[in-house]
Order: sequence, then structure tokens, then C-alpha cells
Amino acid sequence: MTTIYYHPMSFPALAPIFGAEAMGIKYDKKVVDLMNGEQKSKDYLAINPYGKVPAMVDDEFNMSEGSAILRYLARRENSPLYAGDAKAQAKIDQWMDFIVQHIRVNVARVQFNRVLAPMVGRESDQSSVDLGLEFLAQNLPQVEAQLSETNFLCGDDMTLADIVLLASMEPSDMAGLDLSPYPTLQAWLTSIREEPFYTNVHSHFGAELGL
Amino acid sequence: MTTIYYHPMSFPALAPIFGAEAMGIKYDKKVVDLMNGEQKSKDYLAINPYGKVPAMVDDEFNMSEGSAILRYLARRENSPLYAGDAKAQAKIDQWMDFIVQHIRVNVARVQFNRVLAPMVGRESDQSSVDLGLEFLAQNLPQVEAQLSETNFLCGDDMTLADIVLLASMEPSDMAGLDLSPYPTLQAWLTSIREEPFYTNVHSHFGAELGL
Repeated sequence: MTTIYYHPMSFPALAPIFGAEAMGIKYDKKVVDLMNGEQKSKDYLAINPYGKVPAMVDDEFNMSEGSAILRYLARRENSPLYAGDAKAQAKIDQWMDFIVQHIRVNVARVQFNRVLAPMVGRESDQSSVDLGLEFLAQNLPQVEAQLSETNFLCGDDMTLADIVLLASMEPSDMAGLDLSPYPTLQAWLTSIREEPFYTNVHSHFGAELGL
Repeated sequence: MTTIYYHPMSFPALAPIFGAEAMGIKYDKKVVDLMNGEQKSKDYLAINPYGKVPAMVDDEFNMSEGSAILRYLARRENSPLYAGDAKAQAKIDQWMDFIVQHIRVNVARVQFNRVLAPMVGRESDQSSVDLGLEFLAQNLPQVEAQLSETNFLCGDDMTLADIVLLASMEPSDMAGLDLSPYPTLQAWLTSIREEPFYTNVHSHFGAELGL
């Protein structure tokens, strides 16, 4: 049995959920109550000693880190989402890392300070928001350019890189990100959010919490 | 011919260099003059349209992102640094991502503001230093605990995860990081820096610049 531990507000944790759905994997998903510190509970630390989501348990095998879980599941399932020769896999890896390091981390800066910090009573750091927006303005044009050339990040077919991009962009509305300079990305998001692997999870980011 | 583009002060870019050395690959390395904006030059953008280091050209094939380059080279060489069954590879992936996202990014916060910002005449951001140190204090104990259990991050043998950890810790002296709470990590760093794949590159971080 495969169980994925997540929280609906942790958008990095949505990547393995979307991935499992897209691969048609039978799995359980369990919410870890981050708001009440369940990620630091003894029971959860036995599952993931790093005290973070996502984590995955596959029978006796425990692991963490969203992109690593995606790669593991894709290898186990021999999924077309992470297939092809060494060069094709290299481009999937490249985009997965580009999205995590240059897009997701900056969406997180904006989302954390504009949305989560006020929710949990922490002070918002405007300089962190500004830095996130500055880096997004540098890096989102690369995504826009690629999606203007090919239907998905690595060509005509969806790969793990697209799953990571989708999860990374989940809070864009909630965080008030202006995506109007990126019409191809906007259209891509609208279209991919109509796919069953997305609608099986939720209608929109935060829906599970009534947001 | 394999060419890796880097800069000696970009410690993320050292990961594929160390990896190529450890795999015994014949390669060229070329410095991109980041201080004078060469990364945004027309010639370099033809190599890496994202204008960053590292990048790699393997005959006609161009790619970027250090961990992705490491995976590509290891697959091409069928290297034991990224081998084993799906679960063994999953643990290598997990540690590579953990190091990049929870260690390297925070070393970079400290290094940038304490060392690089003054060098390039930018203002240092103390709150970013503090945040980096706070996250390192949370996450380095995980690395210390793992290296206290096994010789390398994923067991008795070195893997790509160790290469990423080594590169990520390169600026620890220069950035004034206190590693005394992590004696196993310190001993591991001392030992791994005596390996030929390291000494072939430099005697210490910054040596190429006389630092």
C-alpha cells in the first residue's frame, strides 16, 4: 500500500499527489495537521524524521522530498511521465530542478508572507515578497517561452516537470501573483486544471479548507 | 566532448565538476565571468538561455541545473554514484533534494550576504543571514545524524548525494559558518577533501581566485 502524507496548503506536497493521480496509482492520502504541529509528533517523525511534508510510505519503505517521490513512483510504474533516453530524462530533470529552485521557492516567498504569515500570526517580511517577485519576473519568462514552443515543458507530452510546475503555481491566485505577462502559462494552467488527475484532488488550491 | 561551464565562486556549479572528476570523465571546464556579466552575453545565452551556471554541453546537447547534469553524466557513464534498485536511487534522489533545498539554499543566504554582496557593492541583508542560520540549525542535525550512522549519506559508498553535500558546504569557512555542533560532518568534509576528485579541482574553495 502506498500512502502519501501532505497538507492541502503545502503546495510542494501536492506534486506527488498530482503525480500519483496522473499515473493512476492506487494510494491513500493522509493530512498532517501542520497548523497544530503534528509534523513534529513522535508518530509522524517515525514516518519522516525530517518533520516535513510530503512523505511517502510504500509498504515498509519510507521516503520524503516531493521530486524524489515523483521519480520513485514513476520508476516503479514505468511511467511515460519520466521516460525516454538519457537526454530526454535529463531535460525532465533540468526542468524539475529549474521549477523548484527558481519558481517554487519564489512563489513560496510571496505566498508565505502574503497569506500564511498573517494566518499563523507571524510578521510578514516585505523584502522577502519583493525578492520573490523580482526572481519570478526573471524566471517566469523562461517558462512562458518554453510553453510557447511546446505543449508541455519537455515537448508534446506531459512529464513530471509539468506536475512540478502545476504544483508550484497552485497558490498564484491566493498570493495575488499577476500572471498577465504570461498568457501561455495562464492558458496552460487553465487547461491542465481541467484534467481528471487535478479535479480528482480538488477544484482549486485551498478548496479543502473552504478557501 | 563534454564541457562544463562554471565559476569558482558559484558553489552549486562545483557539484557537476566534482562529479565529473569522481566519475573519471574526460571533460573541459570553462569559467563564465559572472563578475562582468558574461552569463548574459549572446554567446553564453546560446549555451544556456537561462543565463546561469552551471551548464553543460555534450557534443550537440546543451543542458543546465547542477543536479540534472550530475544525473545525466552518471546515467551516461553507468556510474555507481547513481546506481542500485528503485529504492536505492530514491534515497539518493531524496538526499540530493534535501541538501539543495534545505542546506544549500541557506548556505547561499549566508554566503551571499556576508561575502558576495560586499564584493559586488550590494547591501547585505542581515535578516536573510539570520533566516539562513535558523534553517541550517534545523537541518544540519539531520545530516549529522545520517553521517553518524553511515559513512556516506546513502550508506557505505559515496553517491551523487555526497557530491551535492560537498559542493553545498564549500563556502562554510569563507562564510564563517560554525560547524562545531556537527563533528561528524566536519570530519567527513576533511576526509572527502583529501580525495583526488577534490584536490584535482582546487586545494580549497576560492583558491582559484587567491582567496
